[in-house]
Amino acid sequence: MQNNLSDYDNGGPLFAPLVVLELAQNTEAETITWLLNRITDKQQNGGAELLVEQVLGGGQEEQKGKPNILLVGSTWPRLLAGAEEVGLFKEFNDGTMRGFTFSNRESFKDFQGDGDGFLNIAECQYIIKYELDTLRAKSEAHVPGYPKVKLYPGKSVIRRLQSKGILVQYFPLHDKEELKRLSFSWYQNIKLSAQPLDNIRHYFGEGLALYFRFLEFFTFALVPMALIGIPYYLFAWEDYDRYVLFAVFNLMWSTVFLELWKRHSAQLAYGWGTLSRKKAFEEPRPGFHGVLGLNPVTGREEPVYPSTKRQLRIYLVSVPFVLLCLYLSLYVMMIYFDMESWALSIYYEDPNFWTGVLLFIPSIIYAVVIEFMNLLYRYAAEILTNWENHRLESSFQNHLVLKVLVFNFVNCFASLFYIAFVMQDMMLLRHSLATLLITSQILNQVMEAFLPYWLQRRRNKKVHKKVRRILGDKELPLVAQVQLESDMNTYLGTFDDYLEQFLLFGYVSLFSCVYPLAALLVILNNMTEVYSDAFKMCHVYKRPFSEPASDIGVWQLAFETMSAIAVVTNCALIGLSPQVKAYFPEADTQLILTVVAIEHVLLAFKFILAFIIPDVPKHIQIKLAKLEFESLEALKKKSQGFGRMIEDVIFVSLCAFKVPSFSHKLDLTAALPFANALENAGGYRDPEGP
Amino acid sequence: MQNNLSDYDNGGPLFAPLVVLELAQNTEAETITWLLNRITDKQQNGGAELLVEQVLGGGQEEQKGKPNILLVGSTWPRLLAGAEEVGLFKEFNDGTMRGFTFSNRESFKDFQGDGDGFLNIAECQYIIKYELDTLRAKSEAHVPGYPKVKLYPGKSVIRRLQSKGILVQYFPLHDKEELKRLSFSWYQNIKLSAQPLDNIRHYFGEGLALYFRFLEFFTFALVPMALIGIPYYLFAWEDYDRYVLFAVFNLMWSTVFLELWKRHSAQLAYGWGTLSRKKAFEEPRPGFHGVLGLNPVTGREEPVYPSTKRQLRIYLVSVPFVLLCLYLSLYVMMIYFDMESWALSIYYEDPNFWTGVLLFIPSIIYAVVIEFMNLLYRYAAEILTNWENHRLESSFQNHLVLKVLVFNFVNCFASLFYIAFVMQDMMLLRHSLATLLITSQILNQVMEAFLPYWLQRRRNKKVHKKVRRILGDKELPLVAQVQLESDMNTYLGTFDDYLEQFLLFGYVSLFSCVYPLAALLVILNNMTEVYSDAFKMCHVYKRPFSEPASDIGVWQLAFETMSAIAVVTNCALIGLSPQVKAYFPEADTQLILTVVAIEHVLLAFKFILAFIIPDVPKHIQIKLAKLEFESLEALKKKSQGFGRMIEDVIFVSLCAFKVPSFSHKLDLTAALPFANALENAGGYRDPEGP
Repeated sequence: MQNNLSDYDNGGPLFAPLVVLELAQNTEAETITWLLNRITDKQQNGGAELLVEQVLGGGQEEQKGKPNILLVGSTWPRLLAGAEEVGLFKEFNDGTMRGFTFSNRESFKDFQGDGDGFLNIAECQYIIKYELDTLRAKSEAHVPGYPKVKLYPGKSVIRRLQSKGILVQYFPLHDKEELKRLSFSWYQNIKLSAQPLDNIRHYFGEGLALYFRFLEFFTFALVPMALIGIPYYLFAWEDYDRYVLFAVFNLMWSTVFLELWKRHSAQLAYGWGTLSRKKAFEEPRPGFHGVLGLNPVTGREEPVYPSTKRQLRIYLVSVPFVLLCLYLSLYVMMIYFDMESWALSIYYEDPNFWTGVLLFIPSIIYAVVIEFMNLLYRYAAEILTNWENHRLESSFQNHLVLKVLVFNFVNCFASLFYIAFVMQDMMLLRHSLATLLITSQILNQVMEAFLPYWLQRRRNKKVHKKVRRILGDKELPLVAQVQLESDMNTYLGTFDDYLEQFLLFGYVSLFSCVYPLAALLVILNNMTEVYSDAFKMCHVYKRPFSEPASDIGVWQLAFETMSAIAVVTNCALIGLSPQVKAYFPEADTQLILTVVAIEHVLLAFKFILAFIIPDVPKHIQIKLAKLEFESLEALKKKSQGFGRMIEDVIFVSLCAFKVPSFSHKLDLTAALPFANALENAGGYRDPEGP
Repeated sequence: MQNNLSDYDNGGPLFAPLVVLELAQNTEAETITWLLNRITDKQQNGGAELLVEQVLGGGQEEQKGKPNILLVGSTWPRLLAGAEEVGLFKEFNDGTMRGFTFSNRESFKDFQGDGDGFLNIAECQYIIKYELDTLRAKSEAHVPGYPKVKLYPGKSVIRRLQSKGILVQYFPLHDKEELKRLSFSWYQNIKLSAQPLDNIRHYFGEGLALYFRFLEFFTFALVPMALIGIPYYLFAWEDYDRYVLFAVFNLMWSTVFLELWKRHSAQLAYGWGTLSRKKAFEEPRPGFHGVLGLNPVTGREEPVYPSTKRQLRIYLVSVPFVLLCLYLSLYVMMIYFDMESWALSIYYEDPNFWTGVLLFIPSIIYAVVIEFMNLLYRYAAEILTNWENHRLESSFQNHLVLKVLVFNFVNCFASLFYIAFVMQDMMLLRHSLATLLITSQILNQVMEAFLPYWLQRRRNKKVHKKVRRILGDKELPLVAQVQLESDMNTYLGTFDDYLEQFLLFGYVSLFSCVYPLAALLVILNNMTEVYSDAFKMCHVYKRPFSEPASDIGVWQLAFETMSAIAVVTNCALIGLSPQVKAYFPEADTQLILTVVAIEHVLLAFKFILAFIIPDVPKHIQIKLAKLEFESLEALKKKSQGFGRMIEDVIFVSLCAFKVPSFSHKLDLTAALPFANALENAGGYRDPEGP
């Protein structure tokens, strides 16, 4: 933070601006002043008690507009208080992670002086975002200057301004110094060592750090597979016995990989304080609309939307739409197969170089079309899910993910399944798997990083020119930087990045026993992916707000489902292999039954394995249990006055504890962190024996 | 409680004795007085602050022994304070369930005057048990009078006395009046209406109430199946198409049944306050032994046992032992088949009535043997699990259940699987399924209720005689009652009862599509089961301490696994049916592939179904979320002084919340009770719309 504080001395405000609010050009002065007051006002008056600087937004010199950009910063004490409100977890003196409280800030590790540098920038910006989001309307019936924009007590002001288009943009500022250092340590020196995870987290927050770690973890996990795969390719081991081995390895691999990742991410999340972090009371998402009603939980008046209506929209519109799209994608697939056969027929008529090339055309076209359809569908799904009008961002995300996953799965893999199990043409399968994989990878890289970057460049040039016209060749001042960043496109979250990895995971785990080189290709892709993603985060997109994540959420489930499907496909592929068939000369039934039997055993084994491996490493379970124990002790010593309240607090822990604990994993492995930790208490020899 | 208080005016102590501690005959007077002091001593001096009465134990008049029976009771304020320590949940004025606190007792529903009658007897006894169990050694290095019986600060005195055999028995007293009323409403008037669940809960506690509810729920759930099954039997529909329908229904049924039960039990548990109830800090089980070491969680000095050693015992001894037993049971099975064929051969030599009867002998013998082996194995498993030296009762139970389930499953169903899929003899399958089912049921009833009851009767007679010899035909005084009860055998928990239901569930769900009458038989069995169980609880066994249960724990998982296996077997059975085969005249492969495909679809459907149905009914999620919200609000208003502590308390909620939330059900259905509840907030029409 220090350098952040000292960074903007040239022409900037006196405080370190952390977050930018860009209002619409034509915003009423009345509104702006009101907003400024609310933001700067004392907390007991319902303000956010933050620092604000008002600067001129884009293209002012043409049409003398009013200063419509607000730079928000904060003092250290305020940030620390905020950290407590947000429920941030920091490392305590005894090495455990605890909810930070201002009152005993001194007893937290590396808290010096006034706490300068105790929070990293991402956290500061997250806190400010939280404070702004929870800036609630008091008596105002509408936004001053906009009688139409209704407000009601307790409504988040910012959310309302966003949903009504008065607040155009809302993003955290880049910190050039930090960014330079980060991008250098991240991708400017090509190396095989791990990424600077902590720096990433400090700058972009846990959510993104977790994604990049996953990307890395996945890539490394693929290495053994790739190594095994290469000889298959080089020496063209057509021998299927080997493929059988490969497939079996494949299955174990995917299960173990996912379980290990779960443990690993739990460990990371604990170290980052997000594992134990309470999900803050989730605000309704900006898009959500409804009529004023009583919220049964908070008892407050706020817009509510009948879940029945939502259900209707989902089942009567969304579901049919998805099904239609699936039908279309299958239809396109059949067209592709027609093209295939057509190309083949031409090739056989006169086999020369050009017709040979022609053979590849169909699958390349198909790959492009697939990518295109995915893209198109992606937007449709977003619009649709938006229209379903979910109250919370989380459930919005879940429904979106579900829609997109189903379609992408069918769209990408249907043709391969068809080739494998209907046409049973392993050569074609291998051939089109390769084409699909490679084409889609190339397309991805282009769409993701280079295209946006190129557009970015052109925009920046314009801005630079303009800026130079104003103030010659002085160092780019804050205002200009703000404007540059506000022109960048917004990063829409890790969704698409995870989706890509999900599909790659599919290619590898579903069919790699037929095309062992897949793993290698994916590794190559991911190695560039790391850099292009890193680059796009640093230079293409606006800096995103950090979201504290403790796991990869729905994606864990998605990957696990995929690996379950992989078991089935791999077994089937093995069953189809001529060598295996050879073992059962006359009786096909025999063969099938054995394969099915093996498949069931493998599936069972897989589930048991996933069940046995505890999701949270023991030493962390112990730490968690320790704090739980301490808090119980604390309760015993509680004063009467606080009795009622603390009981409630405990209650939280209880519903919190009980509701999920229906997952029986708990019961069997006694994963109540407590029990387990105690179980695992080490010890020595035993004189006191029975 | 009132009548309980007034109950013992004749010759009993002045307070209502709730719990009985029976010490060994030869216990040192020194020890008894020490124990008495510890129990009656003020809490601030580390006592339990309970009331104790010392009476003469069994057979005093012969050898003038010292009074070795302690009757423990308590005052109301003490019990209420205890209720808070235990963390009891009671209905609040606003209809929600909250942790009871003495400080604001007034605001709990039906709390009148001094709170007399606010707690039911089971709760009172549970509280006293808790207070006694948490009576910890202070400075004592050993139990006074027994230098060999070591103690260390913080060790539970009672547990130590138990493990060293100084405390022989430890049980809650029956309350004759209550018992009369309960048994009348429960089983003395035969009726089809539901059981008096609340009375059961009040008298025996949640654990047992939940079992009896499950028994009932399961039985009712079987009715439709039985109804469908009867015509099959009456009209001897050999037509397999119908069986196919039946099998499919079967699958849906088992899934839906289990999901509904989950919801239902959650609802019950919420109403009983056990859903949100914090599992109390679990004491090491009496059997546990280890050397003094530091417990990593509590930081206290206490015996610890290296988990590695436990693992070794499990994998090097227990697992091989189980496998051996499985082998044996399979061996016995083969013998049974030899007998079968032998009987058949005789029958065919000269078919007359006697040889016809002979046909049934083998499977009857086999059924008896199976029951016998189960019983034997049950004991072995208990000894073995005990030897594994688990620290907590819960994990002891889990390991025991696992051992027993695996064996019982194989032992009971192996022969049926063999007949069905190896011999493929549907007639024999039906025949032996019937014999197994009926024989085992009869045996169970006898072993469970009648035999113990008969033994009981004989004992009681003796005692009665003795008592009469002492004090003529006066009403049986307390002392005698205590002695009667202390002579009763101890109820070992719901384990065996659930196990029996588990096996019945297996018979129904695995094979009932071949023998549709199974459901009916199980219903009949359970109708008697309810009564015999009720009877044995009231008159055969000592009254058990109530354990607060919020679900049926491991058993839920067990039943779900069974129903997954059922999918596979039913599909296979369908595949074997001649009618189905008829559809695929020449190609067996075709048939198998279709069956396998169907099976996979069904399995997938099953999982999705289980995934979609939320485990906790919405209205309860809302209530939970409401309290969570309130506590968050309370936190905001918290005083600095308590800051640290409450943060910790919240921390509990967090680890508690986070650790299990790896079950992704949460993520997708946003089952954070909060989110969901908010999602489901109802509402009206929508003017403010887009």
